[in-house]
Amino acid sequence: MSGDPYDGSRALVTGGLGFIGSHLSKRLAALGADVTIVDSLIPEYGGNAFNVRELAGRVHVNYSDIRDPWSIRQLVQGQDYIFNLAGQVSHLDSMEDPQTDLDINCTAQLSLLEALRAKNPGAVIVFAASRQQYGRPRFVPVTEDHPLVPIDVNGINLIAGESYHLLYNEVYGIRATSLRLTNTYGPHLLMKHGRQGFIAVFIRLALEGKPIRVFGDGSQLRDFTYVDDAVEAFLSAAAEPETFGQALNVGGIEPVSLLEVATMCQEIAAEGGTVETAPWPPEREKIDIGSIYVDHSRLTALTGWEPTIGLREGLERTMAFYREHGEHYWHDRPAPVRL
Amino acid sequence: MSGDPYDGSRALVTGGLGFIGSHLSKRLAALGADVTIVDSLIPEYGGNAFNVRELAGRVHVNYSDIRDPWSIRQLVQGQDYIFNLAGQVSHLDSMEDPQTDLDINCTAQLSLLEALRAKNPGAVIVFAASRQQYGRPRFVPVTEDHPLVPIDVNGINLIAGESYHLLYNEVYGIRATSLRLTNTYGPHLLMKHGRQGFIAVFIRLALEGKPIRVFGDGSQLRDFTYVDDAVEAFLSAAAEPETFGQALNVGGIEPVSLLEVATMCQEIAAEGGTVETAPWPPEREKIDIGSIYVDHSRLTALTGWEPTIGLREGLERTMAFYREHGEHYWHDRPAPVRL
Repeated sequence: MSGDPYDGSRALVTGGLGFIGSHLSKRLAALGADVTIVDSLIPEYGGNAFNVRELAGRVHVNYSDIRDPWSIRQLVQGQDYIFNLAGQVSHLDSMEDPQTDLDINCTAQLSLLEALRAKNPGAVIVFAASRQQYGRPRFVPVTEDHPLVPIDVNGINLIAGESYHLLYNEVYGIRATSLRLTNTYGPHLLMKHGRQGFIAVFIRLALEGKPIRVFGDGSQLRDFTYVDDAVEAFLSAAAEPETFGQALNVGGIEPVSLLEVATMCQEIAAEGGTVETAPWPPEREKIDIGSIYVDHSRLTALTGWEPTIGLREGLERTMAFYREHGEHYWHDRPAPVRL
Repeated sequence: MSGDPYDGSRALVTGGLGFIGSHLSKRLAALGADVTIVDSLIPEYGGNAFNVRELAGRVHVNYSDIRDPWSIRQLVQGQDYIFNLAGQVSHLDSMEDPQTDLDINCTAQLSLLEALRAKNPGAVIVFAASRQQYGRPRFVPVTEDHPLVPIDVNGINLIAGESYHLLYNEVYGIRATSLRLTNTYGPHLLMKHGRQGFIAVFIRLALEGKPIRVFGDGSQLRDFTYVDDAVEAFLSAAAEPETFGQALNVGGIEPVSLLEVATMCQEIAAEGGTVETAPWPPEREKIDIGSIYVDHSRLTALTGWEPTIGLREGLERTMAFYREHGEHYWHDRPAPVRL
């Protein structure tokens, strides 16, 4: 897509030190936008100052929690675009600490929208939602009209967070779009624990030459979006008024089974690790959803967006990144980076 | 239905000084239950000590706000049944103060369920949800499978509140049911302001001999549940394990147009008031949803519940009640009642 809508614009990226947010911030800066990152660097979440090491001096970094309504009220002012990626994204964490998930994914979202309504109603805002909202799929590929019957607290709260955005579009004319992301992966993905999704676990185990354990028979299908493709989805959606008021799926090129993904990770890493299947642990089986992949044709029809990076190529790039920079991602406390 | 399941049981009614909660508490006490009412008597909400004037000494009243997790943690213990009716129910208020709606309808619900999971996982809980969750109907009568696309903050938050209950059933085995109520009416309905629904406004205007203004052409259909029927729906659902994990509509005998309801109110009141139609005020039109009425056949199939009181009879009973006791409902500060 053309960089024109972003050249000279002002863009706020919540969660901008995180996985997708950091790539998006870098791309926006390259397109000529004046970028402000807001991030709280909660240790167990995906924010990592190393993610924006190349942007020092080129973006504004504002340390703040989106649960703090006063700083958000300041930060939304004067922005043309708000890419709203700050969130609690671990399904397991949402079951163990549901209140924190609610605070971040519901309360903070509503207060951000109230701030926008009061202080900057003309901005465009794109919310990072999730296919977790669909729950166990009744059909695949899952379209946006699939019933929303989530099977964890995170899914319930993301539905509310997304719904506030769409409601504020409908009632107040806030130009809001929600993108329902699937398994996004790539460099900058949180690696210091495995609570935000299996793909990080697979990549790290493969790089360490350890066996990857796949629960069940490994035939469950998933789709995968390489992070650069996800970034383009955000840019495309924000630039196309036809997306406003809609929730749109962001998928991958084709669904792949967990067993295939695990095998591919081991092949690319080539560290001698194996793939094993194992019975479901009870607490995980309860929130498993079988095969799921999404239909993103609606986003394509509206914006022309298509995923372009296949899983093998994406994994190769990702593993190359972690071979070089893994030290900044393996542990809880990465070396401080001056921004 | 038989009173057997409740005789000798312990029942907690959140919002028990309110409209439906007070009738439910009275009926539970009559069935032999040991009833604890929890209510905060927030002035602008429906709680009114006069509602339980006949229950003094027969029920426990605990003043507490469901947003206070510590008192709720105590109160859920030892209960066989929890009728969870405390909520913010004004659609207009949810748009003007969305955060309070979220605190009550999401945060407090989640914390109540966490308390139940920790302290009394064997209890039965029935949540008071709303047809507001459906938004603008795509078909009528609305079944439980109708998409949930709410058009106000209250609808969004009730979906989350309901979803927590159903999730805690699915994942933790909490015996939870959600009842999606339509326009419930009858004695004890809040009358001191008109922010909780049009039926109270119509009744009060008719009793005062004032004109009733119907927005649009008045042809919008609604269904109405007399409060005694709603109470039986709660009792039936809690007593039938087949309802656990489900969200079920509670409707009326037949849909009636707003113009008919208004006319019926004036006929029954016989105070000389008229019915006028008027164009929609813009802020109300935004959250209007046209005709809506629900299909409650699923609840009927599971429990045998059916509405039994027609609208005319119900309105006659309601008006008779307010002719006698209106002084306790017309104003913000009813005379204190010793409980």
